[in-house]
Amino acid sequence: MPSRAEEIRVAALGLFARLGYEATTMADIGAAVGIRGPSLYKHVASKQDLLAAVMTGTMRELLALHREAVATTDDPAERLRRATEAHVRYHAGHRLEAFVGNREIRSLVPSNRRRVLSLRAEYEKCFRDLVHAGITAGRFHVMSARLASYAILDLGMGVAVWFRADGELTEDIVTWQYGEMALRIVGAT
Amino acid sequence: MPSRAEEIRVAALGLFARLGYEATTMADIGAAVGIRGPSLYKHVASKQDLLAAVMTGTMRELLALHREAVATTDDPAERLRRATEAHVRYHAGHRLEAFVGNREIRSLVPSNRRRVLSLRAEYEKCFRDLVHAGITAGRFHVMSARLASYAILDLGMGVAVWFRADGELTEDIVTWQYGEMALRIVGAT
Repeated sequence: MPSRAEEIRVAALGLFARLGYEATTMADIGAAVGIRGPSLYKHVASKQDLLAAVMTGTMRELLALHREAVATTDDPAERLRRATEAHVRYHAGHRLEAFVGNREIRSLVPSNRRRVLSLRAEYEKCFRDLVHAGITAGRFHVMSARLASYAILDLGMGVAVWFRADGELTEDIVTWQYGEMALRIVGAT
Repeated sequence: MPSRAEEIRVAALGLFARLGYEATTMADIGAAVGIRGPSLYKHVASKQDLLAAVMTGTMRELLALHREAVATTDDPAERLRRATEAHVRYHAGHRLEAFVGNREIRSLVPSNRRRVLSLRAEYEKCFRDLVHAGITAGRFHVMSARLASYAILDLGMGVAVWFRADGELTEDIVTWQYGEMALRIVGAT
């Protein structure tokens, strides 16, 4: 059973994606989870808090999946492959989070925006560190580790835009192929 | 000198990016180009027409740049490199177009949306055809030409999100490196 707070977060995400943050009201969110009037405020302080929770939640989940993925091997190439697979698989399965994350970053108040951008920078750095480790080990060959990490991350974001669960390319095919592409991008040997 | 219509299109693009399509009014657009009241309607029929013009204009420009890029060589790898470079360079220089194109595709009425999506499909097919040509020539090695073309296109869209003209990575470096990455993605030999 999802908690009440989690239920509210999911409803808010759906509404932010469909109507946009500005156009969504707390009453819409309450109605979506069957809570009328001010009772919603027992569970959540504001619409802004919900948007921040959605975006920081996405980044914390990605960071946790990343750590899990790289903990399973010491090989630099396998680490990058598994981290890319985790990244791509998450985006294939969380298209609304990616859409709202891109579109509504400007709707966050400065303090919340800083938190989200700092988590994003941390996540990007995880990939850059993997690329650096492969370069140091003489396994990867790239001119800019930063650009390679941007490219790999952008592949995943792209998946969130075009992926369809009922499409010709399954989640597994996309995930495995993109893991392979990441290794090509860094010139893994 | 840009034409009056072009001036209005640029002003509309800036406002759509800053305020969003819904929140932008024809009066805002008129004010931005110094036209008051109903005179704006001598130049443009509606806000919807302007959004459609922005989005189809972007795609027509990308298609023209693409054709120009591939016309300069017969070599499959060089064609893909130059097409990718044109794609990336455009996105580094047209961040607002990419942002509005992503965010406001749902704001188009069905007939306009169909036109834009059909131009996007045509553009994606150009890249897919280049990948196929390389495979046929025995020069590229990929499992899915579609996935490779999506990946290459997504790299360019990503550039529109993170690129800063005053950043550490210049437009040229990003463009050339991404051209190289496209060749790696397709396993060019």
